[in-house]
Amino acid sequence: MRLLKVDTLDEAREKLLRATASKILQTETVHFTQSLGRVLADDLKSNENIPGFRKSTVDGYAVRAADTQGVTESIPVFLDVIEEVAIGSAPDKTVGPGQAVYVPTGGMLPEGADAMVMIEYCEKFDETSIAVYDAVSPGRNVISEGEDISRGQAFLKKGSRIRPQEVGVLSSAGVSRPEVFKPWKITIISTGDELVGADETPQKGQIRDINTYSVMASAMKHGFEIVDMKVLKDDEALLEAAVREAMETSDIVVASGGSSQGEKDHTADVMDRLSGGGVFTHGIALKPGKPTILGYDDKTETVMIGLPGHPAAALMVFELTAVWLYRQLTCQPEPKTTIAEITENVAAAGGRTTCLLVELEEQEPKDDVKRTGVCKAYPIFGKSGLMTTLTRADGYTMIDVNDEGLKEGQQIKVILF
Amino acid sequence: MRLLKVDTLDEAREKLLRATASKILQTETVHFTQSLGRVLADDLKSNENIPGFRKSTVDGYAVRAADTQGVTESIPVFLDVIEEVAIGSAPDKTVGPGQAVYVPTGGMLPEGADAMVMIEYCEKFDETSIAVYDAVSPGRNVISEGEDISRGQAFLKKGSRIRPQEVGVLSSAGVSRPEVFKPWKITIISTGDELVGADETPQKGQIRDINTYSVMASAMKHGFEIVDMKVLKDDEALLEAAVREAMETSDIVVASGGSSQGEKDHTADVMDRLSGGGVFTHGIALKPGKPTILGYDDKTETVMIGLPGHPAAALMVFELTAVWLYRQLTCQPEPKTTIAEITENVAAAGGRTTCLLVELEEQEPKDDVKRTGVCKAYPIFGKSGLMTTLTRADGYTMIDVNDEGLKEGQQIKVILF
Repeated sequence: MRLLKVDTLDEAREKLLRATASKILQTETVHFTQSLGRVLADDLKSNENIPGFRKSTVDGYAVRAADTQGVTESIPVFLDVIEEVAIGSAPDKTVGPGQAVYVPTGGMLPEGADAMVMIEYCEKFDETSIAVYDAVSPGRNVISEGEDISRGQAFLKKGSRIRPQEVGVLSSAGVSRPEVFKPWKITIISTGDELVGADETPQKGQIRDINTYSVMASAMKHGFEIVDMKVLKDDEALLEAAVREAMETSDIVVASGGSSQGEKDHTADVMDRLSGGGVFTHGIALKPGKPTILGYDDKTETVMIGLPGHPAAALMVFELTAVWLYRQLTCQPEPKTTIAEITENVAAAGGRTTCLLVELEEQEPKDDVKRTGVCKAYPIFGKSGLMTTLTRADGYTMIDVNDEGLKEGQQIKVILF
Repeated sequence: MRLLKVDTLDEAREKLLRATASKILQTETVHFTQSLGRVLADDLKSNENIPGFRKSTVDGYAVRAADTQGVTESIPVFLDVIEEVAIGSAPDKTVGPGQAVYVPTGGMLPEGADAMVMIEYCEKFDETSIAVYDAVSPGRNVISEGEDISRGQAFLKKGSRIRPQEVGVLSSAGVSRPEVFKPWKITIISTGDELVGADETPQKGQIRDINTYSVMASAMKHGFEIVDMKVLKDDEALLEAAVREAMETSDIVVASGGSSQGEKDHTADVMDRLSGGGVFTHGIALKPGKPTILGYDDKTETVMIGLPGHPAAALMVFELTAVWLYRQLTCQPEPKTTIAEITENVAAAGGRTTCLLVELEEQEPKDDVKRTGVCKAYPIFGKSGLMTTLTRADGYTMIDVNDEGLKEGQQIKVILF
């Protein structure tokens, strides 16, 4: 057994960032209707004001606000109606003192007018005039030109993940083909003589393969493109061939399994050999997830990760390394966390950062103090070989390597799955 | 203008549930590798124990724990090694007193043994025996048969959304084709003479269509299947033809636009006529989102929703009605909320539930009291016609119709986008 220094999670991430600094992140344009969940590769600026005109938010009359000063429910002002604006059309006339123009919701205000009176406060007086029973201030019931997006404004930032509202804004601003990051191509390899497929019945000593599929699903969720998935017998030559092929086709190759010491050495050896000495992390001081290999091949720009064999550990480490790196390089903000109170004391793992799974329970608002109850976080203990610890979990919290643990009632930040 | 009673959000949802109680929710089976994000249509029970054998979590020797009692670093016990188990194979022999069997991580324990000693605490003594320097208790370093999932256990519940870890568990349990709810088929209609496409340059008084695409993206995000999207001029006959067609092809039809009173009446009239009087809600006491129409056609089992025309309101109301209903009917749990402190006083809208958009800012942990700072929620005010209020928002909170508003520093529950 080789004795190699283990990195802290922060050290390992630092090395990942340094090693991959020269990796080129490719971009592409996609039609905005296909852009949900994608990540913007550049700030988006608008060449125009949105809306491009002053827009009414109500059905009613465009007026000069000054004309309505002093008006009350019993003392109306009488205004001449000089035009009716149709929705989608520009008005022809300018509103002068004592004049008004009908504008429907979403319609364009005419020149001269500076406010809208809701139709509920107006009464037809005769064929050409109305009585107005409400005093409005300038700007009332009006969206001004450029109020949503002003010309030149960066209205969406590089690294933003596109949600439904961003799809709407892309349409609004006329950005029909935004530039987004290309998904990273990933090859997922699992090794182990004990693995059989999901459709097979395992014999004694065998288990159905888990890691290939949970890592695949996590990769899909986080916007990677699955190039290949391979389940291999534990054989160094097979692994080498698979990693070599992946280096030609993929941005990142992850190999899980190798849970026994011999296999672990295979993975590190193969990756280090093929990358010309590019493996820089031989273990992370992380619970679960110690047997993690990190490397990078400069020539093919391939990120290489050896994941722990235990299923829960493999999935967590994939998210804490591969997904974390991709989010960093594509300038995505940290995922939002939620605050919860831990329900019991939890000891930290000596000398290791602990990734603690938790189940959340929302609390009823505490009415007496007008405070919502912070939700409870029940720690989920369990061997990292148990996948159901992860299906019970709503998220996880990180206990720092220097922390002595968590105290019952302490507030923690939970990263939701 | 018709005077119709407006429902509270709770009343409207109650009516939706009652009206759609007889709607049949169809299910289908999908390959588990394609099941990410889908919702389980039934509890999943296991016909077998997972793992199906006692599994070692370490590289080492399977022993009878009793044989190691009293052992220390200086007083080893000597055991005869009678077999080496290969990973993926069943052992041939039974461990008797004074005997041990080598088992790699993930390998199967032989009969007779009840614990694993890590290889680090063992030393080869001669060709057939080892010295053991660690006392282990029964079950040490062993996952027992069925510890992950026991035979007959409902290991995943109806209504669960499938995440990466559930994909892994499906594989582990050999459920290669889980039964999931079919996505609802949706037709999205936007009406308005002022609307032009995202590729077009609006003239004065025109705007690019937003609602079609933001609602489409929200529908995609929440697992609906887009059957059709139509942008129509404001014409009752066109709307009627489109809704009629949607009733034949879709589970749900939403029509947005109709922001002016005349158009609003069109939508309600058309939906009520085509469903034979099936419209039951003519407005919700909700800010934003008052002009919302809800209905249901029994014959074609079509949910009908008229959304407000203002873009931010249209998207919020879609999520608070259509998405809410689908989640309810498919037994999905309420979305997780996060706790935050509101940064300023917010007045409630008199007589209406307020859906307040917020931007979240995480706080540094407060070390003195060992408490993580609850994140701050900045309220986003802005007219519901402004789409960028939604792109700035991380989520929203609901202020109850009976609540007098929020006080600065008060904790609120935020539903994240």
